[in-house]
Amino acid sequence: MCAVGTGPDDVVDSVVFPTGEPEKTLARAVEFVGRADLAAVGIGSFGPVDLRHGTITATPKPGWSNTDVVAAFAALGVPVGFDTDVNAAALGEHRWGAAVGLDTFVYITVGTGIGGGGMVDGRLLHGMSHPEIGHMRIPHDRARDPFDGICPYHGDCLEGLASGEAMKARGDSSVELEAEYLALGVLNVVSVLSPQRVILGGGVMNEPGLLELIQRRVPELAAGYFALPDIVAPALGDRAGVLGALELARLALG
Amino acid sequence: MCAVGTGPDDVVDSVVFPTGEPEKTLARAVEFVGRADLAAVGIGSFGPVDLRHGTITATPKPGWSNTDVVAAFAALGVPVGFDTDVNAAALGEHRWGAAVGLDTFVYITVGTGIGGGGMVDGRLLHGMSHPEIGHMRIPHDRARDPFDGICPYHGDCLEGLASGEAMKARGDSSVELEAEYLALGVLNVVSVLSPQRVILGGGVMNEPGLLELIQRRVPELAAGYFALPDIVAPALGDRAGVLGALELARLALG
Repeated sequence: MCAVGTGPDDVVDSVVFPTGEPEKTLARAVEFVGRADLAAVGIGSFGPVDLRHGTITATPKPGWSNTDVVAAFAALGVPVGFDTDVNAAALGEHRWGAAVGLDTFVYITVGTGIGGGGMVDGRLLHGMSHPEIGHMRIPHDRARDPFDGICPYHGDCLEGLASGEAMKARGDSSVELEAEYLALGVLNVVSVLSPQRVILGGGVMNEPGLLELIQRRVPELAAGYFALPDIVAPALGDRAGVLGALELARLALG
Repeated sequence: MCAVGTGPDDVVDSVVFPTGEPEKTLARAVEFVGRADLAAVGIGSFGPVDLRHGTITATPKPGWSNTDVVAAFAALGVPVGFDTDVNAAALGEHRWGAAVGLDTFVYITVGTGIGGGGMVDGRLLHGMSHPEIGHMRIPHDRARDPFDGICPYHGDCLEGLASGEAMKARGDSSVELEAEYLALGVLNVVSVLSPQRVILGGGVMNEPGLLELIQRRVPELAAGYFALPDIVAPALGDRAGVLGALELARLALG
């Protein structure tokens, strides 16, 4: 998803195309944005990434391991901002969406995989590399859900049990089971970060009733112990990431 | 634990006494520090606390719920810094110990309870209130460990399974089982925060071989997926908290 502009009310051009081979995909993105009169480029990339070097590291996505994403845009001759797709979405929500004015919040996307980004004390959360919220371990009641999980690394981590791919592989996922796992994931994020808000985005969250079930289940699991954040949908919908990339571009200007 | 001074090499006076009734305990601390020529006071308090108001909130500790800790020191007429005991310990380790020069790290204490603090991007982690790392949910294999857990709120959360109180209540805790739970806890913290280092302190960590078992188990659980931090003991030992409180006092001077 590529856009040219300065924000939600000023997207002068945009395009969506599938992620194919790295070389062709990046060339297409560079060609698209290169047609505009650019001040800077912002990239919200799927991960895992090396933020310092602007590269994708080891990924199961065919051909994408060790791809130098930032270098592909160097020929444009403008500053390039680079972060994870989820941090870009978090940044978009912070600038224009459901996290305006907040200091500490988390954006979790539940799609084919599960990822998380956010801000702590007003700054994008990076740490040594970046969060991998989808790969936390949560309780897995095999009597209720005998499914082994589909994460090639960890089997039944959060992503292995609750991602879109996991739901597809299980065949008979119920929305209650999905809500249970995501509520456990949210609770664990709350226990570590104490965010003011948790934003749940991604295709799986379009499932009717899922957000409401999670909103109800998290307080039950917390049992009155935690200061609980609001749990909300992204205000920018599926444009949070690409709009956040516009903001990454603005920040790259320094 | 109270100390007067400016750092590890300049503790001019110190005292340790048990936590009894709030009024008497606080009066004793105020009396002790009030004898010195003070510039400021720093307090690293057990939780849960309200950092904005300087109070302890709901706690099972008899009599301590809603205690106004900061107010007790107001009569001294100097600035008062107030944070959690674990953030104080993290701050001490950052200034003089195992986290010098780091931006993002976590300090976890494993004692009668389990708590965590730390820094993100060079600032103490607060969020909406403060982390409650001990109350995250982790996998609990009841075939291996039929113990229900002792957390009055959550049963078998991390603290419910792996705190010193849990080990005592279980009766036959093995160091391997303890390492398994703490490794799961560390892994989940890594998944959310991507810290550069994890410091494991508290009385339970004095168990011979425990740290080494955790250091070995975390990479096994991570299965090559995460950028893993070093997992180390506090360089300041059990003085991390009280020394961190000296630094809280310095920071309270602004």
